[in-house]
Amino acid sequence: MDPYPRPLRDLITQLKRLPGVGEKTATRLALFILADRKGLAENLSRTLMNVHENIRLCSVCFNLTDKQRCSICSDPSRDSTLICVVEEPSDVLAIEAAHTYKGLYHVLHGLISPMSGITPEDIKLAELIERLNRSYCSEVIVATNPSVEGEGTFHYIEKLIMNGKFDAKVSRIALGIPMGGELKYMDQVTLASALRYRRMVKDK
Amino acid sequence: MDPYPRPLRDLITQLKRLPGVGEKTATRLALFILADRKGLAENLSRTLMNVHENIRLCSVCFNLTDKQRCSICSDPSRDSTLICVVEEPSDVLAIEAAHTYKGLYHVLHGLISPMSGITPEDIKLAELIERLNRSYCSEVIVATNPSVEGEGTFHYIEKLIMNGKFDAKVSRIALGIPMGGELKYMDQVTLASALRYRRMVKDK
Repeated sequence: MDPYPRPLRDLITQLKRLPGVGEKTATRLALFILADRKGLAENLSRTLMNVHENIRLCSVCFNLTDKQRCSICSDPSRDSTLICVVEEPSDVLAIEAAHTYKGLYHVLHGLISPMSGITPEDIKLAELIERLNRSYCSEVIVATNPSVEGEGTFHYIEKLIMNGKFDAKVSRIALGIPMGGELKYMDQVTLASALRYRRMVKDK
Repeated sequence: MDPYPRPLRDLITQLKRLPGVGEKTATRLALFILADRKGLAENLSRTLMNVHENIRLCSVCFNLTDKQRCSICSDPSRDSTLICVVEEPSDVLAIEAAHTYKGLYHVLHGLISPMSGITPEDIKLAELIERLNRSYCSEVIVATNPSVEGEGTFHYIEKLIMNGKFDAKVSRIALGIPMGGELKYMDQVTLASALRYRRMVKDK
């Protein structure tokens, strides 16, 4: 006989669907939520429903938003001639957290991956081309992860734009040693790339 | 400017209230929930509300239940003359998972802790005495954690029952080396207790 009452068991089942949450963690979370006296269950339930009902994709860049256009696309102070192409919304948040990039984004919602059967038609590539046709863009910065799929998608975008007679230049985010990283622990590809794309120090 | 849309930020704020969940994990969970195509947000929201509205405390033992009496108290096959006293509902679940105890429970919802200002009146002790007055009980097994508060609460219950002229005997769960534990890593109190309460092997 299950010693958990039905509603508690259901909550544990749903919590187990979260990444990195197993039976034990799910039980701990469910009991914590239940023991909370400050409306955690209600607030979590309400915010989840709110996210489910109100979060959609920006009509321009396909980032997450609760409006027609996301806050970045509707910000007039941003440089609308720069487009940074990323895989997912979390990449936008990571770049924004660095507080250095002032252009717009384009979220692909995936990477081309023949192994997983993801073709160029499955991600927001046609929308990128349409966007370049519609409005002037000086540079497309491809900021997909430096993985097989990320590199493949970069080369695909590169050809697409080069063959498309657009004014936009294409660039790729730098591959190198991360801050705090140690050379002796770096893989060959990273080291080779960091050497190949070394930056010349300005002449005295 | 916050790059997160309002509903997403609200969800992250609520997720951060969970134990062991910081800003990064909360963001990861929120984006995972958002990306899910199988109704995770809706199901989580619904089960949370269901737990919030339907889970209450059993009128007999104060364990979690969605009925008037919990499934353990209403099970006629269990020995109603045995009461195992525990701190929280999760302790009931832990003991039930061991599949060895067939009596009833009494959940205190806390331990006496003068340091935190928790007095005997703040936990379900009066309810335990009332329960002993109301129906026959042969043994009260005090299964609070072997901590300062757990031991203190045990001694308080021991005196309460001894002075109350009840038929019930009082017992304490065994303190010793856990299965798989190593003597060299055990603390002094555990080792001293494991030696003191050693079990005599039966004569040949």
